[in-house]
Amino acid sequence: MRIAVFAGDGIGPEVTEQAVRVLEKLDLPGLELVEGDVGGAAYYKHGHPLPQQTLDIARSSDAILFGSVGDFSCDNLERHLRPEQAILGLRKELGLFANLRPARVFPGLEDLTTLRREVAQTIDLLIVRELNGDVYFGEKGMRTLEDGRRQGWDLMSYAEDEVRRIAHSGFKAAMTRGRKLTSVDKANVLETSQLWRDVVIEVSAEYPEVELSHMYVDNAAMQLVKNPGQFDVIVTGNLFGDILSDQASMCVGSIGLLASASLAEGSFGLYEPIHGSAPDIAGKDLANPMATILSAAMLLRHSLGLEAEAARIEAAVAKALADGIKGGDLGGSAGTREIGDAVVERL
Amino acid sequence: MRIAVFAGDGIGPEVTEQAVRVLEKLDLPGLELVEGDVGGAAYYKHGHPLPQQTLDIARSSDAILFGSVGDFSCDNLERHLRPEQAILGLRKELGLFANLRPARVFPGLEDLTTLRREVAQTIDLLIVRELNGDVYFGEKGMRTLEDGRRQGWDLMSYAEDEVRRIAHSGFKAAMTRGRKLTSVDKANVLETSQLWRDVVIEVSAEYPEVELSHMYVDNAAMQLVKNPGQFDVIVTGNLFGDILSDQASMCVGSIGLLASASLAEGSFGLYEPIHGSAPDIAGKDLANPMATILSAAMLLRHSLGLEAEAARIEAAVAKALADGIKGGDLGGSAGTREIGDAVVERL
Ligand SMILES: CC(C)[C@H](C(=O)O)[C@@H](O)C(=O)O
Ligand SMILES: CC(C)[C@H](C(=O)O)[C@@H](O)C(=O)O
Repeated sequence: MRIAVFAGDGIGPEVTEQAVRVLEKLDLPGLELVEGDVGGAAYYKHGHPLPQQTLDIARSSDAILFGSVGDFSCDNLERHLRPEQAILGLRKELGLFANLRPARVFPGLEDLTTLRREVAQTIDLLIVRELNGDVYFGEKGMRTLEDGRRQGWDLMSYAEDEVRRIAHSGFKAAMTRGRKLTSVDKANVLETSQLWRDVVIEVSAEYPEVELSHMYVDNAAMQLVKNPGQFDVIVTGNLFGDILSDQASMCVGSIGLLASASLAEGSFGLYEPIHGSAPDIAGKDLANPMATILSAAMLLRHSLGLEAEAARIEAAVAKALADGIKGGDLGGSAGTREIGDAVVERL
Repeated sequence: MRIAVFAGDGIGPEVTEQAVRVLEKLDLPGLELVEGDVGGAAYYKHGHPLPQQTLDIARSSDAILFGSVGDFSCDNLERHLRPEQAILGLRKELGLFANLRPARVFPGLEDLTTLRREVAQTIDLLIVRELNGDVYFGEKGMRTLEDGRRQGWDLMSYAEDEVRRIAHSGFKAAMTRGRKLTSVDKANVLETSQLWRDVVIEVSAEYPEVELSHMYVDNAAMQLVKNPGQFDVIVTGNLFGDILSDQASMCVGSIGLLASASLAEGSFGLYEPIHGSAPDIAGKDLANPMATILSAAMLLRHSLGLEAEAARIEAAVAKALADGIKGGDLGGSAGTREIGDAVVERL
């Protein structure tokens, strides 16, 4: 069993370090951890945000534990050299097409969100976001029109097999939960969305037990504010999923606790906290490593089939929280290392 | 002075009727109101959601008071015949490129939103959304790839003049308010956004008093949940503006009170409530006409230069609310007509 550890930029290294300590403490027989460079850190070291050797490490591993990428000092580099290309490249190269982002308010943390307590308590949803297509990976460019004007352009598209694959992920996830699936698109304006909707309807025939509904993305953004408790599983494209999953995460209030999985066909996956690289607090022992530790738990469960070990980590995190060990993001004062210690002790 | 009144579908006719009563009650000398068909209603009557005669009425008017379009019974029509094409067509044909969507919590209505009262109170923002470009109006289609797969596609793009024009709208709006402008894009992924950002920065040189910042759309969706009070004016493209303005509206809680303006160069504009056609409550005297009445006030102010009359309408609405005349959407029980009566009486 080989786990690639890509810490990346900003707070990535310090939160990943704590998750690695947790994994090592489990003392899993035959577990190997291999580090690789990604993001701005990789650019400064190797001249590329996703160097070939990093990709090789990923390909020879069973799963990836990812920190975060993003470094403002790279803002003026050409697009293909910017830190974000590391995560986009890994998603594409490794076929990580299904991003699972659960959002649920942790018991006892109902007062961290800006939503009223009685609304926050109802949130228990999963966003299934497509990660390999859409306007993210279409042709794109900057051109000068005949009349001399500059124009930026990006091609948005989905082909039926791309939609079918993620639709299955959505329906399957719904089967393990409340059996309600909301497909989000903008079919009143976009042909990409029309194809999306047509294919989701086709796939729905295979899941008669799941109640399927369709919602326009603008309405979904409203409903996540008005009544987030109405959602069970949301399936949507890459761009809308980027926006809605971040909105939903913030509804939960405790973004420092939210983990995510990006899965390929089979068991391979990349696991990362949903918070970003937070350069403002990087290197100050202020970041909350719990989301990364919980990402490691997801990794053990989904990619390595180690359910018991995953549950042990989750229980240790819950215990630490219950004991009042909270990072600044949760209104506490525990530092990065202190939180790592607390979880390790409670394993 | 000629106002085109396009009532449209669902609750459109009943809410527009009350706004027209309010306008008539003002007894403005030389004011002419001309009705026209749009949306599903126009499709069923004339075979097209935006018939030529409707466009002619619009072109010979000084402003448009718009109800809403949307009719599920048209869902299976070809795209160019669907109700939404009426509003998209009017925006494009009439050069309505700047959509202004203010979001502010009305005093006394702080408890209608799902946000905590202390957060809701801080909301006072304006979204300036571009309406004539982006993936809305690019080439699009459904095609069969060489290998036989169906694909839906839409071209996203912005040219520099399109961005420059809306950037000026954003900066000018900021100058009349808190002098803070947040430009929202996805420049880490999209070339369209990169051009957007470059041009907004160029234009900013003309507005040294405005503090400009840039935010990725996913982060903006988060920040609208976390701390909506941080925003003054947000300027963004057509697609992101669609999503974020709806999210912001719902943060206010009282969507039945929110008006919007879609402006062309000069004084011409289209004014509409931001709520949709709400087919479930159509024809039942349940819809709140206040947003449409307030849209009529915006119309008088921006397109006809009648500031005093606009203020009179707004004061009458505020008075009715203070007197407890509230629609079901605000937790009250006043019907559509009753609310119209109440506002007319208080003029
Ligand atoms: C860093 C960026 C390219 C990325 C995305 O837009 O997918 C991020 O926002 C995410 O959601 O993982
Ligand atoms: C009806 C639809 C095409 C429209 C849009 O997406 O622009 C609506 O959502 C709006 O915001 O006015």
